[in-house]
Amino acid sequence: MRNLEAASMTANGVGELARVTERVWKALDEFRIEVPSWGFSNTGTRFGKFVQASAATNIEEKFADAAQVNVLTGASPTVALHVLWDLPGGLKDVPAIQALEAKYGVKSGSINPNLFQDQEYKYGSIANPSAEIRGKALKHLLDSVEIGRELGSKDVSMWIADGSNYPGTQSMRRRIDWMSEVLGATHAALGPDQRMLVEYKPFEPAFYHTDIADWGMALELARRAGPKAKVLVDTGHHYQGTNIEQIVAWLLHLGELGGFHFNDRKYADDDLTLGSIDPYQVFRIFHEIVSASEDERAHVAFMIDQSHNLKGKMEAMVQTVVSAQELYAKAALIDQSRLAELQQSCRLVEAEECFRSAFWQDVRPIVREWRQARGLAVDPLAALRESGYVEWAAKERGSRNAGSVSSYA
Amino acid sequence: MRNLEAASMTANGVGELARVTERVWKALDEFRIEVPSWGFSNTGTRFGKFVQASAATNIEEKFADAAQVNVLTGASPTVALHVLWDLPGGLKDVPAIQALEAKYGVKSGSINPNLFQDQEYKYGSIANPSAEIRGKALKHLLDSVEIGRELGSKDVSMWIADGSNYPGTQSMRRRIDWMSEVLGATHAALGPDQRMLVEYKPFEPAFYHTDIADWGMALELARRAGPKAKVLVDTGHHYQGTNIEQIVAWLLHLGELGGFHFNDRKYADDDLTLGSIDPYQVFRIFHEIVSASEDERAHVAFMIDQSHNLKGKMEAMVQTVVSAQELYAKAALIDQSRLAELQQSCRLVEAEECFRSAFWQDVRPIVREWRQARGLAVDPLAALRESGYVEWAAKERGSRNAGSVSSYA
Amino acid sequence: MRNLEAASMTANGVGELARVTERVWKALDEFRIEVPSWGFSNTGTRFGKFVQASAATNIEEKFADAAQVNVLTGASPTVALHVLWDLPGGLKDVPAIQALEAKYGVKSGSINPNLFQDQEYKYGSIANPSAEIRGKALKHLLDSVEIGRELGSKDVSMWIADGSNYPGTQSMRRRIDWMSEVLGATHAALGPDQRMLVEYKPFEPAFYHTDIADWGMALELARRAGPKAKVLVDTGHHYQGTNIEQIVAWLLHLGELGGFHFNDRKYADDDLTLGSIDPYQVFRIFHEIVSASEDERAHVAFMIDQSHNLKGKMEAMVQTVVSAQELYAKAALIDQSRLAELQQSCRLVEAEECFRSAFWQDVRPIVREWRQARGLAVDPLAALRESGYVEWAAKERGSRNAGSVSSYA
Amino acid sequence: MRNLEAASMTANGVGELARVTERVWKALDEFRIEVPSWGFSNTGTRFGKFVQASAATNIEEKFADAAQVNVLTGASPTVALHVLWDLPGGLKDVPAIQALEAKYGVKSGSINPNLFQDQEYKYGSIANPSAEIRGKALKHLLDSVEIGRELGSKDVSMWIADGSNYPGTQSMRRRIDWMSEVLGATHAALGPDQRMLVEYKPFEPAFYHTDIADWGMALELARRAGPKAKVLVDTGHHYQGTNIEQIVAWLLHLGELGGFHFNDRKYADDDLTLGSIDPYQVFRIFHEIVSASEDERAHVAFMIDQSHNLKGKMEAMVQTVVSAQELYAKAALIDQSRLAELQQSCRLVEAEECFRSAFWQDVRPIVREWRQARGLAVDPLAALRESGYVEWAAKERGSRNAGSVSSYA
Repeated sequence: MRNLEAASMTANGVGELARVTERVWKALDEFRIEVPSWGFSNTGTRFGKFVQASAATNIEEKFADAAQVNVLTGASPTVALHVLWDLPGGLKDVPAIQALEAKYGVKSGSINPNLFQDQEYKYGSIANPSAEIRGKALKHLLDSVEIGRELGSKDVSMWIADGSNYPGTQSMRRRIDWMSEVLGATHAALGPDQRMLVEYKPFEPAFYHTDIADWGMALELARRAGPKAKVLVDTGHHYQGTNIEQIVAWLLHLGELGGFHFNDRKYADDDLTLGSIDPYQVFRIFHEIVSASEDERAHVAFMIDQSHNLKGKMEAMVQTVVSAQELYAKAALIDQSRLAELQQSCRLVEAEECFRSAFWQDVRPIVREWRQARGLAVDPLAALRESGYVEWAAKERGSRNAGSVSSYA
Repeated sequence: MRNLEAASMTANGVGELARVTERVWKALDEFRIEVPSWGFSNTGTRFGKFVQASAATNIEEKFADAAQVNVLTGASPTVALHVLWDLPGGLKDVPAIQALEAKYGVKSGSINPNLFQDQEYKYGSIANPSAEIRGKALKHLLDSVEIGRELGSKDVSMWIADGSNYPGTQSMRRRIDWMSEVLGATHAALGPDQRMLVEYKPFEPAFYHTDIADWGMALELARRAGPKAKVLVDTGHHYQGTNIEQIVAWLLHLGELGGFHFNDRKYADDDLTLGSIDPYQVFRIFHEIVSASEDERAHVAFMIDQSHNLKGKMEAMVQTVVSAQELYAKAALIDQSRLAELQQSCRLVEAEECFRSAFWQDVRPIVREWRQARGLAVDPLAALRESGYVEWAAKERGSRNAGSVSSYA
Repeated sequence: MRNLEAASMTANGVGELARVTERVWKALDEFRIEVPSWGFSNTGTRFGKFVQASAATNIEEKFADAAQVNVLTGASPTVALHVLWDLPGGLKDVPAIQALEAKYGVKSGSINPNLFQDQEYKYGSIANPSAEIRGKALKHLLDSVEIGRELGSKDVSMWIADGSNYPGTQSMRRRIDWMSEVLGATHAALGPDQRMLVEYKPFEPAFYHTDIADWGMALELARRAGPKAKVLVDTGHHYQGTNIEQIVAWLLHLGELGGFHFNDRKYADDDLTLGSIDPYQVFRIFHEIVSASEDERAHVAFMIDQSHNLKGKMEAMVQTVVSAQELYAKAALIDQSRLAELQQSCRLVEAEECFRSAFWQDVRPIVREWRQARGLAVDPLAALRESGYVEWAAKERGSRNAGSVSSYA
Repeated sequence: MRNLEAASMTANGVGELARVTERVWKALDEFRIEVPSWGFSNTGTRFGKFVQASAATNIEEKFADAAQVNVLTGASPTVALHVLWDLPGGLKDVPAIQALEAKYGVKSGSINPNLFQDQEYKYGSIANPSAEIRGKALKHLLDSVEIGRELGSKDVSMWIADGSNYPGTQSMRRRIDWMSEVLGATHAALGPDQRMLVEYKPFEPAFYHTDIADWGMALELARRAGPKAKVLVDTGHHYQGTNIEQIVAWLLHLGELGGFHFNDRKYADDDLTLGSIDPYQVFRIFHEIVSASEDERAHVAFMIDQSHNLKGKMEAMVQTVVSAQELYAKAALIDQSRLAELQQSCRLVEAEECFRSAFWQDVRPIVREWRQARGLAVDPLAALRESGYVEWAAKERGSRNAGSVSSYA
């Protein structure tokens, strides 16, 4: 039990050992993170796509993959759906989705409308100068809300890619009210247990101005829409140098944090696996969650939004969930009352050491023990490898993936 | 009249000439930009200070310099005051300031409290964990409000430097309510014609978290404080790549834009002269102002906040005001109704050309003619040089400045 | 002649008028900028592609479009070719290209190999750990050199997209020598009049490390390859805040500047039209060129590398060439000897005013007069519109473009 | 021995335990990091200075503090000296320094000239247009070289703050040769065991262009100066998003890495304590060092360059050395041959897990055991606290520090 002893040192006294273990296990028991259906299919950059033979090619295969991740990690019981790609028939596809839920044992998670792909959205969707196109966008949002209600899904996640590429080509200001109108009408259609999450992003695919560019704009639009609208924080959608955990603290404080799209990046919105570039930042974000009230925490949705261009799809997803669990366990190790005391008295170095000693702690043994106790694979990545799942999928799906090569030109 | 002809081409038709000229002259007649008292005294970087013999060494010299800038440009009738440096005696100094206003013919502008310099503010002022220190900070803010009222000054500009340097050393979240409390109490003391402007800044001098880091946080705190609190946009206080004009458009739309601290930068908050690095950005910001309603525009305070480490203080300030006038005149040239039409119909290249053809227009001749008509120096920088003012000041003040060399060590 | 008078004021004296005009006309006569074949076909972001009916769908249409741009602007007599897309048959396609040159009156410009699209390059091309794949990449480079020689083209432009997405997954260091080896072998195959240009880019499509990430790495590899290897500066390929003109000054000074890929951006590598976000920066880059020796200037290739996702392809390209001409004309207006004198004596404000007064000058009238004198369209964008070319192309090519919609999923 | 068992798991097999321990202990035995004399005295930001009563006020106190850090950590036997602040009398002060070395048992480390503080350097030092001022700068550099030789110090560290604040005010290009000339003359004076390290920095205190802005420029100047000139990497001196470890890999590969100035930052050059913002980055840098050859490693100087504005000076320095030791120990844990194999075969996820499992390992127990075995304090920070050193210094030095409050105005 040497590692728990080390944990107990962090906790400042031998008698604390049991309490620390309990806290970490409780955190792991509660921790759920949603996987995205689009994380299992082949994606790429604007320069092309490297095709994986084992990638999912339809919604059933996505459910199968998501279920496999959940079996291995015990932490991802829901899968985010993308309306256009996963329910091309709209509402009519709901029964088929429900059948997949039953067959694979994972539930539908957040519903993701798509307002960036149709040719009509070239100059925007809900912020398009054309009332007709805005009407079309609204219809898609209302369909998404209805799909969510039918599936018993809580959240409709709205990433609005609208914007412009050149100064002067659009009125940034006129577009605000157009968006408000559509979002208000969408909010009005939400069922009693539904929410809408408003995402923000500073740039890409719009390169000069993005209509919902930061958390301030998302918050303003969410508030105008109504009380069931909350802000969605995608960790990759910030300017370089932004203190993301501070934004999280503010949103929690205001009761406006709806959830997260997790991923990591070095430069722009690179959609890398969570914690792969800056794990300490994820720890700091989790600290804000862990130190919030239980009720606040209950309303925060954890979701993954990544694009695995080179890593194996299944490996990357399992690795992501495991990393999230470990970093969350580290955050749960922080001695909150001791930290608060040191912060209050401005004992900076001691406060910092109290804070980051939890980060330095190797939680892998304690997480491994928790997995064992919960009947899960002790090493999910190894278990995935041993299962032969990826090889099987490559054989099954290989021919269908062969045709999906796209290119820049 | 060749240049006005060119302007008229921009304005799409020969008959437009008079209207364009009228619009630009009207814009120039309205345009006022406040100079900061601290822009006339010696300042530096953390690595040291290069001392100018002619720099102002006391409040009277600052008034004299500000008056000179106004005489030359006709656009800077007010000077921002810094409470700690300009009114070290607080309220007792008000009569002396009033005497300087009368003597030099420029009025007191915004009142700037200082909550970053005293040793007690090491861990924060209005966000300090100590209630006693927050109380001291509040007292300084209330003094500043009273000074403002006595001087008939409209705005109290609040730049709060509070923050922390290392993760975990302070609770970002607990500090929100502490700030709210102090700002609310300050708001309660405002006279009927007074406002408080809440500034934001992502970093420096705090290096990990700054308590008021972006416009979203400033807006939230301003709203909680009360209706006379507005947001102050310092152009240098943004992450790289931020679309500042979009933030301006949002704040105007929400009725929450109090004013600007203008300066330019290449990297961080470099406090360079307005438009010296990216003049097109200033033009875009001015476009948002110019295209707002007259009433909205009336409530926006234009202020300079620069630190001239190498350029001559007087030259830099005159150059700044002239640059601001010229860029504002360019923005006034935009054919707003034509632009709106092109934006509405998404004719991108035409809209962009309509927009930036105003930027390409050389407005210096038209501004020169306006200066002449208003009895001002046709070339303010040349007039400054010819006046011998800087040489005179160097002689007068040289010995006092000699002692002000500071150093890093 | 009011505008030339204004120019003459810049030039400090009425007698200068003729000399200024001559300088600008000479600059315009010399100025050539290459258009990219891929700028005429449909492209998009990773989130999808908005299809233009009039976009070129094959190499003949690209030549036709390039020729049209040259007819309108008189400044783009060459078109950059992309080996994989424009010469899918490799060397065998050279005669067909030569036929197009003859038919359309524009010549082949730089040859662009493609080492990022084939599935084999998933883990890199010339830096791939597999010797076999590096061999394949070398073969493509040698083919490109031969194509260039056959076409009488001067430059082979090498953008190497190699890199990795996650720390630890590749040895950045071992890959250096692998690249050197391939580039050296490529250099050895260059004909006496050929050059190879080594491009750098900090990120995308590789997200953690890009093997040739900055000008220092590109320069090192170019030098190792041999004397005909030079550095290619893509203006969009820099970290935010980078002083690009300083890099240009260094490369000129070292005799290592091969040329430019021009485009603009607000955040990452957004491939926007030249000068659309920061025109002053382009002016500053052109100043370094204009103030270099005639011989140095002669060896710098100006090329456009843009991706017009929303703007009309033809409009955007004409607009880009015109913007480049105008900004180059502005740079040519700078009074170099006066500037050097003011710089030498550290008269900062005067030096800055001397420098940027050339930027403020409206050169459109003088450029218009030059166009007229050269028998070109006075307003190329208007002439394009009036020509009906785009409508004609849409009719001709519309059905072929209809099928090219791609998507993220 | 539970933690060593965990280490052995990393090392892939129980028999590896002893070898892993040996590797880490060997790494710790070799690891030396130099402390800066200026890290012990009061410093601040441009907005002011928060004074610590216990801060060193003269060179003897700096030696005393440095010695104390070395006693506690066993890893910092040298102290970097700043010529202007620590040897105001120049060469004449050498005997006094030697006496301090003998008295306190720490040696003089790198010699740091100062070319940014004197009023004459307003427009630059070694890049100043004035030959006279360049001559003065050269003299200071030659003095520094001689001081270094007398003190038996290996490195002269050159941070050149030269640059300009506004486009057009200086010729970036002409300044290159001026710098070359001075640096060449300095190189010529170096003794057989001396080196000169050329540092780079993208901005501050120069805000538009810095003459030595990136590693490419530093490398070019170092090479021109001569073989004893190497590049100095300050971790805080990079654009946001830069892959610093890649630059380190290149410099090692080229034989041009002279050493490091370590510190951390969130935005600009914030001079925070090493690893406090992004510890994973430090680990990645150390990996490049650890995986280099023993001979390469031997020529890399590790130095701290931090400014502790809020943290206690002594606490911050001890904490920094301990963090460096722990992160270096983590890097030493990486199974290099296994990693190379996985990289070669492009098994991305496995390679990444191999790499970062060393980062996840809690090395504090193994470092603690090493300290104990070497007769050092097991917990240096606790030992510092228990020693009462800071309280003693505050009493001793308090009155001298009271007068050092400076301000912005």
